[in-house]
Amino acid sequence: MSTRAVAGPEIERLIQLLAKLPGLGPRSARRAALQLLQKKDALLAPLTQAMEVALERVVVCSRCGNVDTSDPCTICCDPRRDDTVLVVVEDVSDLWALERAKAVNARFHVLGGTLSALDGIGPDDLSIDRLVERVSAGGIREVILAVNATVDGLTTAHFITDRLAGLNVSVSRLAHGVPVGGELDYLDEGTLSAAIRSRTPF
Amino acid sequence: MSTRAVAGPEIERLIQLLAKLPGLGPRSARRAALQLLQKKDALLAPLTQAMEVALERVVVCSRCGNVDTSDPCTICCDPRRDDTVLVVVEDVSDLWALERAKAVNARFHVLGGTLSALDGIGPDDLSIDRLVERVSAGGIREVILAVNATVDGLTTAHFITDRLAGLNVSVSRLAHGVPVGGELDYLDEGTLSAAIRSRTPF
Repeated sequence: MSTRAVAGPEIERLIQLLAKLPGLGPRSARRAALQLLQKKDALLAPLTQAMEVALERVVVCSRCGNVDTSDPCTICCDPRRDDTVLVVVEDVSDLWALERAKAVNARFHVLGGTLSALDGIGPDDLSIDRLVERVSAGGIREVILAVNATVDGLTTAHFITDRLAGLNVSVSRLAHGVPVGGELDYLDEGTLSAAIRSRTPF
Repeated sequence: MSTRAVAGPEIERLIQLLAKLPGLGPRSARRAALQLLQKKDALLAPLTQAMEVALERVVVCSRCGNVDTSDPCTICCDPRRDDTVLVVVEDVSDLWALERAKAVNARFHVLGGTLSALDGIGPDDLSIDRLVERVSAGGIREVILAVNATVDGLTTAHFITDRLAGLNVSVSRLAHGVPVGGELDYLDEGTLSAAIRSRTPF
């Protein structure tokens, strides 16, 4: 930062760290820092405390890879979920997105990324072996590959399908189509073609 | 939040608090929280520590109203600044913006807002008396009113000008005109008229 010191180095450090959060750039981090400093009791103090708690208690679930304050996580421990269906996602954020949508009432498995030749990410960097173990242990009827519809996502899906072959489990993937509320005019050709191919009776 | 519990209440609380930061909505707060939880050592721990330090050490400067870790603040203590010029701003964010631009090498005075009949903010809610005191104490040659070019900002500027009358200090305001890099086509009539009125020899 080439600006003159407006405030002490402690505040500059706070701004720099806030700027690393997704969604905050250098300018909005400065605004966020100022808000925190001007609302010490209402915002800074409770947020600091919540982060201290998180720092102390958050763990990665050893079963599914979700992040939570307990291991196994809330979802793995939830008795009302369908144990026979396992939803495979790339990242915890995808798990949270599906949960937010209440899209499925099953168990999850977080891969921790996708295979990527470009980024040098191979099968051993993901929790694919762990997934095969979970499926091999029995009790799972269906594996839903809820990976992103990207080249890397699909490559990963194919790889996993191969690894699960012979384990007596049906493997499915998410449907392609028009997003609910979406307008055709704004959609790409691939999505439109997929939506036509997978058309359903009305 | 009507979603099923994805994670423990501690994490939900962290998300809710992050969502109060300017620039972060409920969705991006969730993403930010996840980033924090997945990068415990690289992000969560140092940010928590920076916030603890801020919580403990940040104070409002009793002289100018800036927030800093020392009182008087870094700017008030800086010996290289022109003591005869005082820049009056609405908020600490405006002070920081001027400093970021290295626009002026003077002292500041933070009002803490603007007069607003609508929001019921009167002169006693702002540090106007304190400003008059500082100017009355002598040594100040010019007061630059760097308030926002809004109705409330200009009302406040007029009020302050009246209060400073007879104190033997010249009062100025920021120039109106075309923003540097700005295109005329996108500017409002008021700004264009002001830019014509205040045209300078080329």
